Amino acid sequence: MNFASYLNRAFSNGFPSSSKLLVVFSLSGGGLVAYSESQSTSATNSTEVEPLKKKKKVVVLGTGWASTSFLKDLDISSYDVQVVSPRNYFAFTPLLPSVTCGTVEARSIVEPVRNIIKKKNGEIHFWEAECTKIDAANKKVFCHSVIDSNLVGKNDFSLDYDYLVVAAGAEVNTFNTPGVKEYCHFLKEVEDAQKIRMSVIDCFEKAILPELTEEERRINLHFVIVGGGPTGVEFAAELHDFVHEDLVKLYPSVKDMVKITVIQSGDHILNTYDSRISTFAEAKFTRDGINVCTGTRVLSVTDKEVNMKIKSTGENVSIPRGMVVWSTGVSTRPVVKDFMDQIGQGNRRVLATDEWLRVKNCEDVYAIGDCATIDQRKVMEDISAIFTAADKDNSGTLSVEEFQDIIDDILMRYPQVELHLRDKHLASVTDLLRDPEGNAKEEVDIEGFKLALSQVDSQMKSLPATAQVAAQQGTYLSSCFNKRELAKLAPEGPRRFKGSGRHDFCPFRYKHFGQFAPLGGEQAAAELPGDWVSVGRSTQWLWYSVYASKQVSWRTRVLVVSDWTRRFIFGRDSSRV
Amino acid sequence: MNFASYLNRAFSNGFPSSSKLLVVFSLSGGGLVAYSESQSTSATNSTEVEPLKKKKKVVVLGTGWASTSFLKDLDISSYDVQVVSPRNYFAFTPLLPSVTCGTVEARSIVEPVRNIIKKKNGEIHFWEAECTKIDAANKKVFCHSVIDSNLVGKNDFSLDYDYLVVAAGAEVNTFNTPGVKEYCHFLKEVEDAQKIRMSVIDCFEKAILPELTEEERRINLHFVIVGGGPTGVEFAAELHDFVHEDLVKLYPSVKDMVKITVIQSGDHILNTYDSRISTFAEAKFTRDGINVCTGTRVLSVTDKEVNMKIKSTGENVSIPRGMVVWSTGVSTRPVVKDFMDQIGQGNRRVLATDEWLRVKNCEDVYAIGDCATIDQRKVMEDISAIFTAADKDNSGTLSVEEFQDIIDDILMRYPQVELHLRDKHLASVTDLLRDPEGNAKEEVDIEGFKLALSQVDSQMKSLPATAQVAAQQGTYLSSCFNKRELAKLAPEGPRRFKGSGRHDFCPFRYKHFGQFAPLGGEQAAAELPGDWVSVGRSTQWLWYSVYASKQVSWRTRVLVVSDWTRRFIFGRDSSRV
Repeated sequence: MNFASYLNRAFSNGFPSSSKLLVVFSLSGGGLVAYSESQSTSATNSTEVEPLKKKKKVVVLGTGWASTSFLKDLDISSYDVQVVSPRNYFAFTPLLPSVTCGTVEARSIVEPVRNIIKKKNGEIHFWEAECTKIDAANKKVFCHSVIDSNLVGKNDFSLDYDYLVVAAGAEVNTFNTPGVKEYCHFLKEVEDAQKIRMSVIDCFEKAILPELTEEERRINLHFVIVGGGPTGVEFAAELHDFVHEDLVKLYPSVKDMVKITVIQSGDHILNTYDSRISTFAEAKFTRDGINVCTGTRVLSVTDKEVNMKIKSTGENVSIPRGMVVWSTGVSTRPVVKDFMDQIGQGNRRVLATDEWLRVKNCEDVYAIGDCATIDQRKVMEDISAIFTAADKDNSGTLSVEEFQDIIDDILMRYPQVELHLRDKHLASVTDLLRDPEGNAKEEVDIEGFKLALSQVDSQMKSLPATAQVAAQQGTYLSSCFNKRELAKLAPEGPRRFKGSGRHDFCPFRYKHFGQFAPLGGEQAAAELPGDWVSVGRSTQWLWYSVYASKQVSWRTRVLVVSDWTRRFIFGRDSSRV
Repeated sequence: MNFASYLNRAFSNGFPSSSKLLVVFSLSGGGLVAYSESQSTSATNSTEVEPLKKKKKVVVLGTGWASTSFLKDLDISSYDVQVVSPRNYFAFTPLLPSVTCGTVEARSIVEPVRNIIKKKNGEIHFWEAECTKIDAANKKVFCHSVIDSNLVGKNDFSLDYDYLVVAAGAEVNTFNTPGVKEYCHFLKEVEDAQKIRMSVIDCFEKAILPELTEEERRINLHFVIVGGGPTGVEFAAELHDFVHEDLVKLYPSVKDMVKITVIQSGDHILNTYDSRISTFAEAKFTRDGINVCTGTRVLSVTDKEVNMKIKSTGENVSIPRGMVVWSTGVSTRPVVKDFMDQIGQGNRRVLATDEWLRVKNCEDVYAIGDCATIDQRKVMEDISAIFTAADKDNSGTLSVEEFQDIIDDILMRYPQVELHLRDKHLASVTDLLRDPEGNAKEEVDIEGFKLALSQVDSQMKSLPATAQVAAQQGTYLSSCFNKRELAKLAPEGPRRFKGSGRHDFCPFRYKHFGQFAPLGGEQAAAELPGDWVSVGRSTQWLWYSVYASKQVSWRTRVLVVSDWTRRFIFGRDSSRV
C-alpha cells in the first residue's frame, strides 16, 4: 500500500487536473451556521483543527468525472465537504465499451471514491445514497440510502449546505420510444456493461442449443445497436472483435450466423466527428460486415423485433433481433428535473448555469458535468451596456481607442467572439469595425457597433456531454472555490458591463483536446488539436497510451494495461460470470 | 492466442490428471443407436470421421471438478459426448473464499468449459442448461435452458444416452433451519462470492451513514459465519484481513465497531483436520479478535438476529447481526433426489455408487463428485464367498498358503483391509490370523476367518465432499471409459468372489494429498501426506505455490498470481462493483 501511495503521489499527472494540487489557500469564510447532526456523529480525523473559524458546508452530488475532478483539487481547509452518490466508486467511463466484451475488466476501471478524495488535512465525508430532493429554499438536500438488505438504522437523512455542487450526471434518453426500457440494454454505468457481457454470452449459448431452427439461431445472434455515436460505434467494434477473435473458436457451429447492425438516425455514424472520421468508420464497418443503417429512426422495440422508419422513403420496417443496445444520448435525472421546477427552469430541457457554472435563478448552487449546460450570455443581449461602458466620454460614438480598451474584457466575457474571429480569419477584434470595403472606421455609433457584432452569437455552441468537459468543469470550479476569499479582494474576472467592478473569476472556458473513436481490429480514429485527423493502427496505440495515462490511480493504470496484455495473449474470457 | 495454446500444451501439468492425456485408444463399441436430432442440427468439426462405427453416446451432467477431470482425459474417438450444465465455466472453487473479499477476482478462477473440453479429434458438445429430470428407464435426460431473456427458440430439450455421468454437484444444506434461505449468504458458487463481496461493502456503507446510532452501526458491522469448516474459517480469515488491511483506512470512523463471529456446532473449528491445526486456528482467531462460538447450534435466522442454542448449557441466545454467511455442508440436488426415488434409493441421503462409481440399481449410469458417495462393500457381507473362493481344496479350513493366494484380491477389492492393517501396525494380512497370544495359526476355519476380519469394516469411511475427491473420481472414470473395450479382453480388476472371472477394473481408490487451511495474515495450516502438519508463514507460501500450480489453464494461473501480486501492492478494491 505504501508503494501504491508513493506511486500515486510521485506520478499523479494522469488525472486531468492534479497539477493544480499545490494551489493551497488557507483563507476561510466566517459563516455562522451550526454543524449538522451528521457531522457530530462522525469522527473527524483532521489534525489541523481551527476552532475559531466555522467552515462553510459544501455538499457535492455525484462521483463521476465532474465531481471527482472538483474534489481532487479542492482545498478543504476552508470547507467541510460531504459527497452523496449511489455509487461508492469513480468509473473511467470511456473504457465502458471495452468492459462489455471483457477486453478490460469492470474492476480495472473503477476506483473507490474514498481513495480519490482522501486528503491530508481533514476528511471529506462520503455517503452512499441517492439524493432524492434538493430543497434550494432551505439549503438542504434529502438523501435515501439505496442499500438493499436487512441492515438496521434509518435509510433517510438530510444535509444542510452553504454551497451545493450538483454533479449527478444524466440518465439514458429513451425519447419515450416504446419498449426501450423493457427490452434494451444501456451503456451508461458499469453494471450496464457487465449485463451486456453476460447477455452476449447468453445469445451464443441460446443460439447453439439443440432444438433450435437455423432461423432462430440467426435471430438470437442478431445484435442491434441503436445510436451511431462514439459509444454505440465503439461497442459495435468491440463486439465484432470479441465474436471474430474469440467466440468463433468456442462456438464454431454458429459462427457464420452472427450479424451486427448499427442504426443511426443521422446521415452518418460518428456525426459529431470530422467527416473524414465518419467516412473511415463507415468504410471499416462495411469491410467488417457490420450493417450500418443511417437515416433510420427506431419507432419501437418489442420482445422480438425492432421497428424502424427509413427517413428517405418513409417506409416502416421491422427486423427480428437478439440483443439490443440503446445508446442515443442523455436526459435529465428526476431529482434535477424537480429542482429545475423549483427554480423556474421547468420548461427547459437541461439545468442551466451561467458561465461561472452557477445555477441560474438560484443562490449558492453550482452544476457541472452532464446534468447541466452553460447558458452562454449573448453579446447582443448586452450590446447597449457594452457600448455605454466602452463610451467613456459619453460621446455616443466609440473610437478605436475606446474599443481597444474594452476588447480584453469582451473576449473574456464572451468566448463566442474569439470563435467568430477564428472562423472569419480575423486578426483582431478591431477588424470587426471595418466597413464592407475593408477600410478601418475611425468611429462607430451604437447601430454600427450592433452591426459589427451581429454575427458573433451564431458561434455559440453548447458543450457536449463528455468526460472531458465534465473534468474541466470540476477542476475550474475547485479553483474558484479555493480562491473564493482571495478573489473578493482581488477579482480576476472581466469587467461587469452591467454594474460596476469586475467579476470575481474568469468564466469557464472549455479547451478541446480532441477525441478518439476506436473502431476495432486494432484500428482507431482520432480528432487531434489543430484540426488534425489520424486513423489506423498507430492511432490505436496512441489511444492505448492516452487512456493508460489518464487513469485515475496507479492501481487502475496497472490493471488496465495488464488487461490489454492479457487480452493479447489469452483472448477474452467467455465465462458467464 | 497461439502463445496461450502453446503454454497450455507445453506445461499442462497443472490439472490433476493431464499427464494421462496420452492414453489414447481407438477401440469403439458397436452400438446401433441412431444419432439424436440434437446432433444433426449442429455441425461437427471432426476431421477423423469413422462412418463404420457408431459411437456410444455419453451425457455428462455438470461442469465442476468431477466432470471436467473426466472430460479432460476422455478419449472421444469412441464416444459422442454431450455436457449439460447451467454454468458454462469451470470454477476453481478452493479460491472462492478469496473472491469474497477481492484478494482474487472471480474472473481469475473461472475458465470456459468449452476451452477445457476442446479436443483435437472431434467436438464435445456443451449445452448451457439445467438437467430437470433423469429418465433412467428410457435412458434419457430432460434439460431446460435457464437463459433468462427474450431470445427465441425452445428452452426444453432431451438427450438420449448410452452412458450417463452424473456430476451435478450438491447444493447448500440448510438443515431446514428457518430463515437461512431468506437471510443468509452461501459460499458455493462464484455468484455467491460476488454477492458476499458487495454485501460486505454494503454493511460498511450503511454503518457509516449519518443518522445511525452507535448501536446500529455495531449491529451492521457484526459479521456472522455459521459453520467452522474449512470454507467458513477461510472466509472469516479473509474478511478479517480485508477489514484490517484495507477497509479501516477508508472507513476510519467505524473501524473499531467491526465484529466477526464463527458459530460451530462441534467442539472445535476445522474438526475434520488434525487437532494440532484446530488448536492453532483457534489460537490465531482469538489473537485476531475473531469470536469462535463452538458447541453452538443455530436454531433460526431472522431479519435482525441469529438464534442459537449453546449445547453445554442448553441455553438459547440471540445475537443481533449484520451479514450472515451459511457454510455448513452440502445436500442432494432435487434432480438427483428424484433420480434416487426412481431407482429405489429414495430413503438414502446421498446417491450411492459401487466402488467402480456405477450408480447402484441402475445400468450405465455413473455418479462422481459431491452428488454421490461410494457405498463400500463390507468384507463381512462377502465373508463366506471369500472363504469359499480361497478354500481351493474345499477342506473347510484355510491354510496360510491358500490365504496368501487370495490376499491381493482382497486388498484390491476391500480398501478397508489395508487401512485396518495400517491402523493396527500389522505388516501383512497373515498377521490377522495370529491367535490372541500372537502365534501364527496353521489353519483357520470359517468362524476363525470371520473373527480375524471382524474389525476390518470399522475402518470404512465415506469420502469427504472435496475438489480433490471429485477430481480423482473424474480421472479414474475417464480411464475406465478409455479402457472399456480393452478391459473386456483383459480385465485388470480383482477376482470376483461371487461369480467367476475378474472385475474389468480395479475399484476407485482415493489418495489423500493433504489439505490446507489458510488462516489470514499470511499464515496457513496444512495437513501433508505422511501425517505431517505444517503451520505458519511458510505454509502460506506453500499454499500459494500449490494453488497456482493447480490452476486449470495458463490464463487463470497468470491471473491468480497477478491478483495476489496486485493485492500485495495496492490492497483489495472496495468499489461496490
